[in-house]
Amino acid sequence: MNQKPYVIIMAGGIGSRFWPYSRNNHPKQFLDILGTGRTLLQMTYDRFSQISDPDRFFVVTNNNYFDLVREQLPDIPQDHILTEPMRRNTAACIAFASYKIEKLDENAKVIVTPADHLILKEDNFKKRIDDALASAEANDHLVTIGIKPNRPETGYGYIQFMTETNGVAKKVKTFTEKPNYKLAKTFLESGDFVWNSGMFVWKNKSILTAFEKYMPEMAEVFEEGKDYFYSEQEPEFIRRAYSLVKNISIDYGVMEKSENVYVVLGDFGWSDLGSWMSLHELQPHDKNNNVVEANALLYDTTNSYVKVPSDKLVVVQGLDNYLINETDNVLLICKLDAEKKFREFVSDAKNKGEDFV
Amino acid sequence: MNQKPYVIIMAGGIGSRFWPYSRNNHPKQFLDILGTGRTLLQMTYDRFSQISDPDRFFVVTNNNYFDLVREQLPDIPQDHILTEPMRRNTAACIAFASYKIEKLDENAKVIVTPADHLILKEDNFKKRIDDALASAEANDHLVTIGIKPNRPETGYGYIQFMTETNGVAKKVKTFTEKPNYKLAKTFLESGDFVWNSGMFVWKNKSILTAFEKYMPEMAEVFEEGKDYFYSEQEPEFIRRAYSLVKNISIDYGVMEKSENVYVVLGDFGWSDLGSWMSLHELQPHDKNNNVVEANALLYDTTNSYVKVPSDKLVVVQGLDNYLINETDNVLLICKLDAEKKFREFVSDAKNKGEDFV
Repeated sequence: MNQKPYVIIMAGGIGSRFWPYSRNNHPKQFLDILGTGRTLLQMTYDRFSQISDPDRFFVVTNNNYFDLVREQLPDIPQDHILTEPMRRNTAACIAFASYKIEKLDENAKVIVTPADHLILKEDNFKKRIDDALASAEANDHLVTIGIKPNRPETGYGYIQFMTETNGVAKKVKTFTEKPNYKLAKTFLESGDFVWNSGMFVWKNKSILTAFEKYMPEMAEVFEEGKDYFYSEQEPEFIRRAYSLVKNISIDYGVMEKSENVYVVLGDFGWSDLGSWMSLHELQPHDKNNNVVEANALLYDTTNSYVKVPSDKLVVVQGLDNYLINETDNVLLICKLDAEKKFREFVSDAKNKGEDFV
Repeated sequence: MNQKPYVIIMAGGIGSRFWPYSRNNHPKQFLDILGTGRTLLQMTYDRFSQISDPDRFFVVTNNNYFDLVREQLPDIPQDHILTEPMRRNTAACIAFASYKIEKLDENAKVIVTPADHLILKEDNFKKRIDDALASAEANDHLVTIGIKPNRPETGYGYIQFMTETNGVAKKVKTFTEKPNYKLAKTFLESGDFVWNSGMFVWKNKSILTAFEKYMPEMAEVFEEGKDYFYSEQEPEFIRRAYSLVKNISIDYGVMEKSENVYVVLGDFGWSDLGSWMSLHELQPHDKNNNVVEANALLYDTTNSYVKVPSDKLVVVQGLDNYLINETDNVLLICKLDAEKKFREFVSDAKNKGEDFV
């Protein structure tokens, strides 16, 4: 049982919160958003390459992004790039990959991870993943990776754990989706809440058992897949399967219902890079707390983020806490903390023309 | 003496106050800045075409803009496009044209006008020009066109006149360049101050006499021109002349010194279109007082001016009183009233690269 784990990278997001930089045809996970020379998907792959081998990676993404994944991760087998015909949230995504892995290896251990998160302290991270693998393997636990919160963030899910649990994996008490500010503050102060990172570790058998128990309809649909996976009929089967299954998150469909869920507490410089604001925090600043990725002249401008192709000269005067991003055919100027408006921006932009989103 | 007047259009400006829309290679007067289908130079020509004939127009401009003028005003004779080898302010500009006209017609009446002003009530304007021509012709006056002020503008020159003068042309008492706000307010309230529009009307003989009297050195230089004007040697002569003459305005060099200066009071919807702000005032507004010349989505945005090529989608959120202009390779975002910063913007932009200005 000392086999390396499988890694399921969920790469189906459309990244509208980084619009217009991230676009329908090039979402956030496929962008070198930090300017390191590697995209977020590639950074995720690199991170787990220290733990497993290329032929144990599976990437679940949208049909449209197959070529992008193949291009960015040339080392993983082509039939490990699972393409979804439509977005059906994390339960279907994980079921698809898990049932496909089941056919390959009945004793698989699995790590599930988003494609587009940032982890700064990779050594710490690797230790927590090892802890989670050990816990999952010894006790059939479904293990989530929780992040120690550093602010009363209202955009994340929170996991409450039982502090008295022995061992590194703590038994989960409750899940709470995006709390209001007051609640988030209480959570932060209590010390027994962590952020839900959306990363999971388990034996493949454990999650399949959980699907059968808590989402029997979805289990039944994908169970049938064993006759089609790794064959020419797989795409047709998947189209059918996706038309049948519910749009539901793994947290809501399984984790919140299971008695067997544990959380490993992580502190490894994590960011979900969920907004321009979070990116602004991470990037190098000028003396006025501006992040400038542009050929720019700034006057009386503070706490702002200017990202414009460098063949253009940008002159900005008198802005505080703004985002200026020009990408291809879109110029966006908005408050840096206007996260909640992005859905509206993108939806209205789409009405102006499909090629703006 | 019922001959039509000559019209000298001064079109040498570089229009940095509309940067980046107006550029070194395409200053304001050559732009269809109001979106009417005609450039400001063409609108100026059109306006005076009701008063004179194409072969009585002279346009003074910079060497670099000869082709632009010829293209935009194909009806005026080519040798009436006078090109200056360097910018030497209005005295040299007017002397050049006046001495050249002198060789053609010793009895010429002349109207001098900037190329880049807007006049909304052309009928009123024409009447005031007729008044000025009559006054200039009858009395050898140097007549300026003054604009009744409607606000304590600190960016203009003011002309004080003698209210007791009989007739439509009032004798000028003083010239004051750009006063401070307090002084401008006093001027406005006094009722005997008008804005200096930079338009002049006189007999050509009168202004030549004034040059000889008040700017004898300049008169001497251009007097020599009669041997060269309308010949192949004109450009060489002009290069020499411009290297000799002072950089000085006609107001300072002649008008402020002459005893013979009169002003005709105009009220014909005049604007010097001297800033983005003045253009904002003139253009149609949306319900939030924004001027939008762009394919734009605005959210919580007021009193702003958005001018971006329409193949781009612009999304703006949370701005009040801002200018957003993208032209070619420059994107400018600044306070709409940041007029005084433009010199700095353009100078700094030039340091970034000659092709940004």
